[in-house]
Amino acid sequence: MSNEPVSLDHALASFHALWSPRVVAHVNDYDVRVAKVEGEHLWHLHDDTDEFFLVLDGQLHITLREPTGEREVVLPKGAVFTIARGVEHKPSAPSGAAILMFEPTGTLTLGDRHEEIPNHIDVTTGHALGL
Amino acid sequence: MSNEPVSLDHALASFHALWSPRVVAHVNDYDVRVAKVEGEHLWHLHDDTDEFFLVLDGQLHITLREPTGEREVVLPKGAVFTIARGVEHKPSAPSGAAILMFEPTGTLTLGDRHEEIPNHIDVTTGHALGL
Repeated sequence: MSNEPVSLDHALASFHALWSPRVVAHVNDYDVRVAKVEGEHLWHLHDDTDEFFLVLDGQLHITLREPTGEREVVLPKGAVFTIARGVEHKPSAPSGAAILMFEPTGTLTLGDRHEEIPNHIDVTTGHALGL
Repeated sequence: MSNEPVSLDHALASFHALWSPRVVAHVNDYDVRVAKVEGEHLWHLHDDTDEFFLVLDGQLHITLREPTGEREVVLPKGAVFTIARGVEHKPSAPSGAAILMFEPTGTLTLGDRHEEIPNHIDVTTGHALGL
């Protein structure tokens, strides 16, 4: 990993795949990842880690299955939100979004339990940035 | 900590103190903090943790004392950079900046070793956000 600053705009311009995060920085044993998203992702959950989102552009919706029931949070550009470990969630972005995530290195995009995966969905611990 | 999305613009509008981070989210045993900065901070280092910066607005300069000598990195808006543990560094922002940081909960703003602290500098593990 470079020890030069990385422009998030430059990083986001370097790939087109949706729901397929690129690692832009490491912090101890965590990754900072960016992704382009559009449409619906899958229901999934992470048993052992929280998941942090910052919306860089567009609007991200996250539906959560909490003990009190299902609810949707809407994150406009510039909003941050942490999904607690163990909470099943389904991200979506009807009009598209660019997001930044913090998660332990090695965390799978679809977590520990998830719906059946269609062919067009990439399951990854984050791709290297090809800058 | 709220389990609702937090607007970074809203968070930044809620305080004026410089070099005095507010915690906007928790991720496992890490904090996500935002700060307003302007002018020069102090030389300091963190023995046991990396420190991640994302520039939300303005421009952040960081001078680093690396084994190969001193160098300055300049982070414009939208740039990310990780300072490796053990690297002495001095942030500055001649024209002001708003930054987001990701660090283990409890990390002191001035780390484990630092210059003598003038009265106007706040040493903190991050203040609660008063939203």
